[in-house]
This record gives sequence, structure tokens and C-alpha cells, in this order.
Amino acid sequence: MSARVLLQVTGALAEVTLSNAAKFNAMSRAMWRDLRAVFTQIQQNPQLRCVVVRGAPGRDGGAGHFCAGGDISEYAAFRFDEASLRAFHEADVWEGLQAMLDCDLPIIAQIEGNCMGAGVEVASCCDLRFASDAARFGAPIARLGFPMAPREAALVARCVGALTAREMLLTAAVLDAPELKQRGFLNQVLPTAELAAHVQALAERTLHLAPQAARLNKQALRILEASTPTPALTDLLAHCYQYAASDEHREGVMAFVEKRPARFAV
Amino acid sequence: MSARVLLQVTGALAEVTLSNAAKFNAMSRAMWRDLRAVFTQIQQNPQLRCVVVRGAPGRDGGAGHFCAGGDISEYAAFRFDEASLRAFHEADVWEGLQAMLDCDLPIIAQIEGNCMGAGVEVASCCDLRFASDAARFGAPIARLGFPMAPREAALVARCVGALTAREMLLTAAVLDAPELKQRGFLNQVLPTAELAAHVQALAERTLHLAPQAARLNKQALRILEASTPTPALTDLLAHCYQYAASDEHREGVMAFVEKRPARFAV
Amino acid sequence: MSARVLLQVTGALAEVTLSNAAKFNAMSRAMWRDLRAVFTQIQQNPQLRCVVVRGAPGRDGGAGHFCAGGDISEYAAFRFDEASLRAFHEADVWEGLQAMLDCDLPIIAQIEGNCMGAGVEVASCCDLRFASDAARFGAPIARLGFPMAPREAALVARCVGALTAREMLLTAAVLDAPELKQRGFLNQVLPTAELAAHVQALAERTLHLAPQAARLNKQALRILEASTPTPALTDLLAHCYQYAASDEHREGVMAFVEKRPARFAV
Repeated sequence: MSARVLLQVTGALAEVTLSNAAKFNAMSRAMWRDLRAVFTQIQQNPQLRCVVVRGAPGRDGGAGHFCAGGDISEYAAFRFDEASLRAFHEADVWEGLQAMLDCDLPIIAQIEGNCMGAGVEVASCCDLRFASDAARFGAPIARLGFPMAPREAALVARCVGALTAREMLLTAAVLDAPELKQRGFLNQVLPTAELAAHVQALAERTLHLAPQAARLNKQALRILEASTPTPALTDLLAHCYQYAASDEHREGVMAFVEKRPARFAV
Repeated sequence: MSARVLLQVTGALAEVTLSNAAKFNAMSRAMWRDLRAVFTQIQQNPQLRCVVVRGAPGRDGGAGHFCAGGDISEYAAFRFDEASLRAFHEADVWEGLQAMLDCDLPIIAQIEGNCMGAGVEVASCCDLRFASDAARFGAPIARLGFPMAPREAALVARCVGALTAREMLLTAAVLDAPELKQRGFLNQVLPTAELAAHVQALAERTLHLAPQAARLNKQALRILEASTPTPALTDLLAHCYQYAASDEHREGVMAFVEKRPARFAV
Repeated sequence: MSARVLLQVTGALAEVTLSNAAKFNAMSRAMWRDLRAVFTQIQQNPQLRCVVVRGAPGRDGGAGHFCAGGDISEYAAFRFDEASLRAFHEADVWEGLQAMLDCDLPIIAQIEGNCMGAGVEVASCCDLRFASDAARFGAPIARLGFPMAPREAALVARCVGALTAREMLLTAAVLDAPELKQRGFLNQVLPTAELAAHVQALAERTLHLAPQAARLNKQALRILEASTPTPALTDLLAHCYQYAASDEHREGVMAFVEKRPARFAV
């Protein structure tokens, strides 16, 4: 029952499960490393044609969550030092997400329950996103005293749109699935009871489409979406973790860990 | 009744008709060349102020189609060789689309029936898109064993959005007009019986607006939307037709021509 | 009762009011300079955490307008000469907008009534946009014989989307709040009677979130959205005001001033 990202292969279909039952499938550091390993394995397997990503079911077997965010209980151990914070975001998190972005197969996200922070980031690396009508989305880290890392913010803003990224990051807004459908982040919203079967049927249809064409389309779209780095961006990436030891960051994370409201003084 | 792109000029209004009655107005190679010639002629005529693009009516004079895609019956003659495939996409197709993008007049798409593949590309070169509530949109070339050419994919993804482009290309999805309205590709959806009159009235109003301002706005928006090429994009454009002679490409196209299901083996 | 942009500071909240009662809060040249001064002052005040931007109430104290556009009565004095037109757009207008874009605090637009031209530009510099269900949006300068300046067009197109920017600029379309919500420009549409209280409550909640994180998020999003200039863009910016003395520009503006329909001959 430990925190894991699981891979199950059935014929040409790869199923990836985010599993951290005690924490609504929040991503631990180990899970980010798992994510990278799983998608590297998928990318190297020429027999595969489609990937589905979902959260593990709830403990009672009922409707679960896609991913409730990062595993905040680990944060005090590494977030308050710039070098170790950079290592977390650039190595563990980004290399997991980059492995998804580098995958040449169609990736379908099946989203139930909470899809927060890290969950929005993982979903943003999927090509298609189908959600239950009870799913909820946000990145309320403004309550935790830290910003989204720049590469992650660029990824999320590209997928949810600049307006929604700003609402999530600047006001800690949590938005429901119909709203995220209207805002262009979701392909379709379905009743919870129909979601899994809908995604399964779509994945199976996708297995019969031309596999080389899918890979070529994904490679081209990846290159077309890449922006040229500017000097300001290079500079941003060099300095973006300097907030690590700040009072605000420490207060936000520790307040969560200590189950008390955070108080942010200017 | 051969395949043609027709131009009719009435005062300051140019009306462009995609006409290939036997094939739901699918674009033949000759029609791509017509498209370039027609828009070059429009751009050189300083008397014009507005362009409407539509498909020819159905044979019975009833509701027709905007454009059902490319004329697949021609494909076996040139698609399976890299050089001739490149010539088709980069010269015939792209030069037709580029002539539309280079046009300084407001271009209004009037979309009935099927708007698939090449139809989505032509519509993406229009400034405004009005559709009948019965119109359907997609680019199901994953059934035909080939990807969308990179410049065309960039154009379509910019207009339908990355999520919809991926749904169309990776799952061969066909989406209806209300869905495309919600996803930001269409300005408005109207009952079929009202579409032509609505577009006509809008075009006539546009004729009375400041013509130099329209040209300057279009020139500026064109420059603002252009992205700087990256080395990866240059490389992509150099190699993107290497799939020409592949088994998958041949199987997809020939299965369609032979009216049988395609079977794609890895 | 002169035309002003007003700043009121209450604790950590800055409230900015566009006020030109005689003209539905249209922006005069002096107001653009005020806008720059007000946002420079906000940016330099480390005690502030959130900004709300709204139009002044109507003269009878009832529902007002966000901003009806530019103050056209001033235009004949400076628009018909290239150098003075450039000075207006690049110094007064753009420096006001740039001061908003450079602000590191969350900025919430509260939009009632008309939001036209300059109003859409000011709203586009806000992070979040909430509108009354009676608000109306457009940039109908095609009636006035001039295009939107390139930096302003890039800003507006990024926020309303390319399709809507083209509809506003090329057809002088005016669109209502539910339509702009659907098209992704607004976070939420509310009954007029509820709008102010909703924005006030959101601003107050935002005051309690982590302030350093908000600043870091805004700085990163600003850098991530910046595009690299191309040679064509440099060239566009060098020549984009050459239309200043044209007959069309003069006719459009003077017709408005003289309260008669404009007649644009090719």
C-alpha cells in the first residue's frame, strides 16, 4: 500500500495508475521518479499504442481521486533550502513530467475526484482529458506560501489557459469539471459511473488507428509547441528557487503540516 | 462539373466556392492550385473589401458541404514517394493556404455539412467562421495511415486549440458545430436555413467599414501570430515526409481506395 | 468631475477607478498618464497585496460603465500626424498598460456596462475579470478609420483570442458578457447587483494568501508569456503609424466628431 506509480500492460494498451491511498493519490518524491521510469519504459516499448493515466480507486473501492497534489508531509525535509528545492522541482518533478511529454503515444487522462497541483500538471501532459462530473481542479499553493515552478507554470498555463492559471495560482480557486470543460481543459465531462467505460472504449478504438501516424503527429505537435527561450527566461530559471528559506514559504508549509491556518505578514 | 475553386466578384465582395460535387467538395490537387490563384487575384484587386468562402451546394440544390477533406482517389499516384509527397504538401497545399493567410481582406467562412481535414485547414485560414448547426468537423487521417503535415498541424492547432487538434488527429474524432463553438473555433452556430443570409448580411456590413484599417489590422495580426523558427522545427520540416513509402501509409490509403478496413500492424 | 484615474488604498487593498463621467469613463490622454502613475505607485508600495480596477459609477449613482474606449473628442488634435500618433500610442497608452502588466500584485477587473477599445485593453492587463451580465465588449474602431496599434492588438488577441480579436476589429462586433465568458475572456458573469460584493469578497480573500508567492507567480507568468521579437515585428513597429494623415483615418475620426456617418472610399 505504499506510494507508487504503477504500470500495467495489456496487449498494446498501457495503463498508468497514480497510487497513494492514504493521501488521495498525492505525488510523493518517489512517485515522481516512478512516473519517469514508467513513461521511459512505455516509450521504449514498440508494441504499445495508447496510454491511459488514472488515480487508484478509493480504499473502499468506490470513486477515487486523480491526484490531490504533492505529498506535503515530505516538504519540510527539503523545501527550505534553495539547492534541494531546485533538485526536487527540476529533477524529480520536471523529469517525470518531461518523460510524459516525450512519450510518442496518445495519452488519455481519466480524472475522478480531486485533481490539484501536481494532478493538474500530470493531466496537462496528457493529450486528452476526460473527467467525472464530480471532479475538482485547482493549484491552491498560494495557501502554502510558494509559487508554481516556472516550467510547471508554463505547462499548466498552456493547457488551462492564462486566465485560469492566474485564478488558480493567485486566488487559490478550485473549479469544477463543467467549468474546466467550458474553459477548454477537458474534452468531455461524464457521469462518474460512465467515465471508466468511456475511456476504455476510446482507448480500444485508438489501438486500431495508424500507430506511426500517431507518433509522427505527437512529435510534430511537441516541436510546434516549444517556444524559443528568451534571456529573461534563462535568468528566471537560474533564480526561481531563491525563495526556499523565506519566512513565507516556511510558514505556509509548516502551518499545513501543523494543521493550523497560515498567517502571512508582509 | 469538374473540381474547381470558383471566384465571383460583386462590387467589393469576393465569393470563393469550393466545388467538387462528386466528392462533397473535397480538395483535389488542381483545387489547391486554384485556391492559390484565386486568393492571389483577390489580393491584387484593390477594389475588394471582403471575402466569403463556402462549399458548393449539393447536387439537388439542397444543403451542401464545406469540404470533405482531400481527394483521396488521387493519393496513390503521388503519396508513396517522399519527394512527390513533399511537393504536394509544401507546394500545392501550403501555397494555397499561404495565399489565404497572406490576404489582407477580412475572410468569412460559411460552413455547412462536412468540414474535414483540408476543410478544417481552409477554414483555419479564414478570419471568422460561421457554421450551420448540422456541420461536422474532424481530421480523421489516423484512419488513412498518415500524419498531418507540420505547417498544416501548426495552423489547425492554433485555431482549434491543442486539445482539439490532438483529439482529431490521435483518435480520429468527429465533433459537431456546437462543440466547436464551445471550443472557440466558431464565432456563431446558426440553423442551416439562416446561415447564408447571416453571412451575407455580415459581409455587406463589413464592406462599409474602413478598408485601410482592415488591411493594417490583418497585416499586424499576421506578424504577431508568426513564431520564430527553432532548430528543431527546421529539422522537422526537413524530414517530415520520410514516411511516404512506409507500409502503414500505403495500407491506410489503399484500404480506403479499395473500400476495405485498414489493418495497421506494428 | 474632470477625467481622472483615481487610487484609493485601504489596508493592503488598492482600488483603481477609471473616472470620466461625461463620457462613460472613456480614457483621455491625461487618464493614460494617470494610469501609469497609479500603477507605478502601487508597484512601489510593499504593503499592498491586491488591486481592483473598475469604472466610476454613473452620475445618478446607478450602474456605470467600465470604460467606453478612448476619448475621441481629443483625437483630431493629434492623430493625423505620424509622430504625434506614435507618441500617443507608444508613450501615453502603452506606458499606462505596461505599468499594469509590470505590477506584481493580483489585479481584478470589475466590469459593468460598456467595455470598449481602451476598456478591453485595460481589462486585458488584469489577471482576473468579473463582469456584470449586462456588460458589453468590443473594439469598433473600424468605424473610426484606424487599426489597433500592434502592441495593443497583441495584448488583446492574447486575452480575447485571435477569433474574437478579428471579429471585433474586422467587423466592429459588440459581444455580450455571457459570450465573452464562453470565449474565455471572463472568469465569471454575475447579476449587476451582485458584482461589486463578489469582487470585494474575492479581493479580501486574496489578501490572506501568500504575498511573496503571488509576486513570484506574476513575475514568472509575465516572462513566460513574452514572445521573442522577429525582424518582421521590428519592422511593423517602425512603420505602424504611417496611416496617420490618410484620408480614411481623417474621415473616420472627423465623422464621429461631426456626428455623421463615415464614408470610406477605396
